[in-house]
Amino acid sequence: MPDSEKNSEKNEEEQAAEELVTFHFSKNDDFSTWFTEINKRAQLADLRYGIKGFVVYREWAVMSMNLMYRIYEKELESHGHMPVIFPALIPASNLSQEAEHVEGFTPQVFWVTKAGTDVAFEEPYALRPTSESAMYPMYQLWIRSWRDLPYKRYQSCQVWRYEGKMTRPFLRGREFYWLEAHDVFATKQEAEAQVLEDMQMTENVVIKRFGIPAITFKRPQWDKFAGAEYTCAADTLLPDGRLLQLPSTHLLGDRFAHAFGITFIDEQEHERYPFQTCYGPAISRIYGGLIAVHGDDDGLLLPFELAPVQVVIIPIPKKGDKGQVEAFCHDLEAKLQSDGFRARIDNTDRRPGDKYYYWEMRGVPLRLEIGNREVEQKSATVFRRDLRTREVVPTAKLGNSIHRLGDAITKELQRRAQAVFDDAIRDANSLTEVQQVLDSKHIARICFCTMELAGEACANKIKDETGGEVRGTRLGIQEKPWKPCLVCGKPAGTVTYVGRAY
Amino acid sequence: MPDSEKNSEKNEEEQAAEELVTFHFSKNDDFSTWFTEINKRAQLADLRYGIKGFVVYREWAVMSMNLMYRIYEKELESHGHMPVIFPALIPASNLSQEAEHVEGFTPQVFWVTKAGTDVAFEEPYALRPTSESAMYPMYQLWIRSWRDLPYKRYQSCQVWRYEGKMTRPFLRGREFYWLEAHDVFATKQEAEAQVLEDMQMTENVVIKRFGIPAITFKRPQWDKFAGAEYTCAADTLLPDGRLLQLPSTHLLGDRFAHAFGITFIDEQEHERYPFQTCYGPAISRIYGGLIAVHGDDDGLLLPFELAPVQVVIIPIPKKGDKGQVEAFCHDLEAKLQSDGFRARIDNTDRRPGDKYYYWEMRGVPLRLEIGNREVEQKSATVFRRDLRTREVVPTAKLGNSIHRLGDAITKELQRRAQAVFDDAIRDANSLTEVQQVLDSKHIARICFCTMELAGEACANKIKDETGGEVRGTRLGIQEKPWKPCLVCGKPAGTVTYVGRAY
Repeated sequence: MPDSEKNSEKNEEEQAAEELVTFHFSKNDDFSTWFTEINKRAQLADLRYGIKGFVVYREWAVMSMNLMYRIYEKELESHGHMPVIFPALIPASNLSQEAEHVEGFTPQVFWVTKAGTDVAFEEPYALRPTSESAMYPMYQLWIRSWRDLPYKRYQSCQVWRYEGKMTRPFLRGREFYWLEAHDVFATKQEAEAQVLEDMQMTENVVIKRFGIPAITFKRPQWDKFAGAEYTCAADTLLPDGRLLQLPSTHLLGDRFAHAFGITFIDEQEHERYPFQTCYGPAISRIYGGLIAVHGDDDGLLLPFELAPVQVVIIPIPKKGDKGQVEAFCHDLEAKLQSDGFRARIDNTDRRPGDKYYYWEMRGVPLRLEIGNREVEQKSATVFRRDLRTREVVPTAKLGNSIHRLGDAITKELQRRAQAVFDDAIRDANSLTEVQQVLDSKHIARICFCTMELAGEACANKIKDETGGEVRGTRLGIQEKPWKPCLVCGKPAGTVTYVGRAY
Repeated sequence: MPDSEKNSEKNEEEQAAEELVTFHFSKNDDFSTWFTEINKRAQLADLRYGIKGFVVYREWAVMSMNLMYRIYEKELESHGHMPVIFPALIPASNLSQEAEHVEGFTPQVFWVTKAGTDVAFEEPYALRPTSESAMYPMYQLWIRSWRDLPYKRYQSCQVWRYEGKMTRPFLRGREFYWLEAHDVFATKQEAEAQVLEDMQMTENVVIKRFGIPAITFKRPQWDKFAGAEYTCAADTLLPDGRLLQLPSTHLLGDRFAHAFGITFIDEQEHERYPFQTCYGPAISRIYGGLIAVHGDDDGLLLPFELAPVQVVIIPIPKKGDKGQVEAFCHDLEAKLQSDGFRARIDNTDRRPGDKYYYWEMRGVPLRLEIGNREVEQKSATVFRRDLRTREVVPTAKLGNSIHRLGDAITKELQRRAQAVFDDAIRDANSLTEVQQVLDSKHIARICFCTMELAGEACANKIKDETGGEVRGTRLGIQEKPWKPCLVCGKPAGTVTYVGRAY
C-alpha cells in the first residue's frame, strides 16, 4: 500500500469537496478572484499541467465549447465553407514566403526540431500559429480557374503561440482552440463583402445566440494582422474593465496570392491573382468571454443552447419515501431527453441544498424540484437560474414550458449583458477624462485624428498615459466627430473607442 | 500579370478536370493504384504537403470523418465518458515516468525544443504520441476517493508519431486523428469489463454501423501496448491481402497508477491503487478502411449515414425546358433537407452523364434523376449506387423510400464486405500453406503453441518465412486447436490468425 499522506489530509479533502459545491464571490468587485475561483470550483480549466500558458480544459467547459464548435461549423458551412484538415506542422520555409507575415509570427512560433532519439530535421517545423502558410501553397495547386472561385474552406483546430503577455485560462493561452476560414475570390469587391459576411456571422453567433455584447470594429492600420490590408474585429468588455477581442477577420488583398503564387484563369482566359480573406473565431476565448459576461456572484449562467445540462432534476422525497419520487424523476428525465433536452437527474446522496448550490454554480438554466406533492399532482416545480423564480408546471405541459423558459433565459442573459455594455460606453474629451473612464472600468469614446498610420503616435500617447488602446472605427455605423483629435488637436477624422485590453 | 505557364498547360488542365470526373480501376487486381487514384480523383487526401507522412485531408473525407467522430463521441458519452481537452505538448519528464511506455514511444516522438528566435527550452516537449503521460499526472490530482470512480474521460484529437514504416494516406501517417478514452476503476475486474465494453463498442460502431468486417483479438504478449498488461484489437482485411488494425484497447492494470502516483481512498478508508484502461479508435485510419473495404471499380461506396451527400439530384431537362425541371429539383432538395437528409442538387453546366460518374465516384448512395416525365408524374427516378438499380417513386412517398433505401444500402455494403472477409479465412497446416494463403491475399488460421512470450520465437519464424504476423486469439470465441503448433510441433494452446499487415 502506498504510504502517502492522503489519510491525514482528510480535512483538506473535505474542504476541497466543499469547494466544489459552494461558490460566492463578487464578480464586479474582484473579477480576478471570481474568475480564478469559478475555473477551479466548476472545474472548467486546470492550470497545474506544468507548461506555462497551457491548461487542461475540463468536461464542463469542453461540453459547452463542443456545442459552440458545432454551431459555428454549421454556420460556416451554410455560408458555403467546406471543412478541411491541414497538418499542425508547417515547414519554416513556408512561413517565410510572405515577408510581413513571417516577421509578425516568427517570434511566437514553437519549433519542432527533432524526432526520436537521434533525428534532427534540416529544416525545422513550426507548430501552426495560424494556417495561411500551411494552406496557401496547397491553394496554389488546387485553384486553377474562375470556376473554382469563390473557394471557401475552414478547419477546426488548435493553434500555438509563444505569447509574451500574461496568460489566463480561456482568455489568453499559448495553445488555443479556434476555427479558421480561408477564402479566395476573383475580385476585391467579393473579398470585402466576405469580410462583412464574417463580421455579420460574429454578430449572429456571438452577440445574438451566445448573448455576448460587442462592438465590431475596423482596426487601425497599426493594429492589423501581419500581412493583411486591414483587419476587422469585435470587442466585448469584461467585468474588470478590460476589452476582450472576439473573432477577427482580415482582408488579405492579393498580397498572399502573390507571395504563394496563387493564380486563376478568368473567363477571358487571362491569368490573374485572386483576393483573399481569413476569419478566426477562437472558441476557447469566446467561452472565456461567455462565462465572464454572463456569470453572477453565485457562479456561471449559461445560455440555454450552450448548457451541457439544460435541466437538472432534484428528487426531494419525504423520509422513507424515496422510491416513488425517484421513479417519477427518472420518468421525467427520460421524457425530457426524448424531447431532445439535455436533462439529468441528480440522485447522488448529497443533500438537496448542496445539489442546488452545485448546479447553480455550474449555470444549469433550469432545475426541477420534485417532492411528494409534485408526484401526487403530476407536476414539477421549475426554478429559473437567472431570475431565481419558481413556477409549478403540470408535467403534461413541461416540454413546452421548458422550450419557452429556455428561450426566455437566453434572451434575459443577452438583455442584461447588453445593458451593462451599453452603460459602459462614455464619451471623453481629454486624456484625463479617458483615464477616469478607464479607471471606472468603462470604455472611452473619443474624437481622434486618423486610423491611418499617421495616427499611431497619438494612439501611443493614449496608451502611455492611460493604458488604453485605440480599437478602431465602428463597422456599419458612421459616427461624426464632435471635436478635434483629443491628442494632437488636428481635425478629427474619426470617432474611436479606447479601452484597456487583454 | 504573372508569367507562369498556366495558359500553355491548357491540355493538362483539361486532363486534370477530366480526372476529377472519371474513375475506373480494378480494386482487387491492383489495390495500390485504386487507392492512390481514388484519393486523388475524389480529392480525399493530398500528399503534396511537403512533410513526409503528413497529408492534407480534403473536404469529402473530412465531412465523413466528422460524422464518424460525432457517432463515436455519442457512443463514448452514452457509456459514461466525458470529454476533456489536454495540451498537445507533454514535458519529456512526464513521458519517462513509466519505463516500458517511454521505451516504446520515445523513438517515435516529435520534439519541440525552441520558440521564437532565441528561446531554447531546458526540457523539451513531446508532441503527444498518445496521452497517458499527459493525462495521468492530472488524474493523480483529480482522483481522491472511491466516489470518483469509475472515472471515464476521452478526448478527440490528433497524435503524432515519427513512424519508420511506409506511410499511406489514412492507413498510416505521422499525424493521425483519433479519440482516446482513459478510464480508471477501483478493481481489476471492472477494468477488464471495460476492455470488453470497448471491444463491444468497436463491434457496434465499426462493424455494424460502418459495415467494416473485423475479428476482435486479444493480442499476443509480444505485441502489446508499451506498458500494458495486455492489448485487444480488431483487424480487418484490405483488398491487397493486408490486415489493418482497427481500434485497440489496453488493460493497463495498476502499473501506470504506480508510475504516476494515482491512488484513491476506498470505502474502508484505505488508500489503494486503481486499475486503468485506454481505448484508441483512430478515425482517419477507420476512414481508410471504410473506403478500401466498400469501394468498387467505379469509386467509393459509402454507408448511408456516413455519406457527406446522401442524395444527389440531377436535373435532366429537355432542351429549352430547364426552368421547370430545375424548380422541381430545388423543391425536392428543400423537402429532403427539411426531412433531415443531406440532399444536394447538381445544377452545374456539366453533362448529366458526367454528373453521374462524378457522384458515383464519390460514393453518393442515391441519385434522383429528374426529367420532364418525372415532373409531370410528380415522381423521381431513384438510382442506387450499390446495386446500380433504378426505381420510380412518387414524390409523396420519397422520404420513406429514401429511409428504406438508405438502410438497405448500408446493410448491403455490410453483407458484401462480410462475405468477402469470411471467405478470406483459410485453415493452414504448414508454413508452406500459410505462405500460399497469404500469397492469395487471405488470412491463415493456424494452430499455435502459446500467446505468452514463449511463443514469440515461433511467431518470428512465421514472420521471417511468410511475412505474416500472428494476430492473437479471438475474443469471446473459444477455438479448439486441431493439431500441434504449426511451427514448433509442441501441443497447441491456441488457434490464431496470421496475416500480412499494414
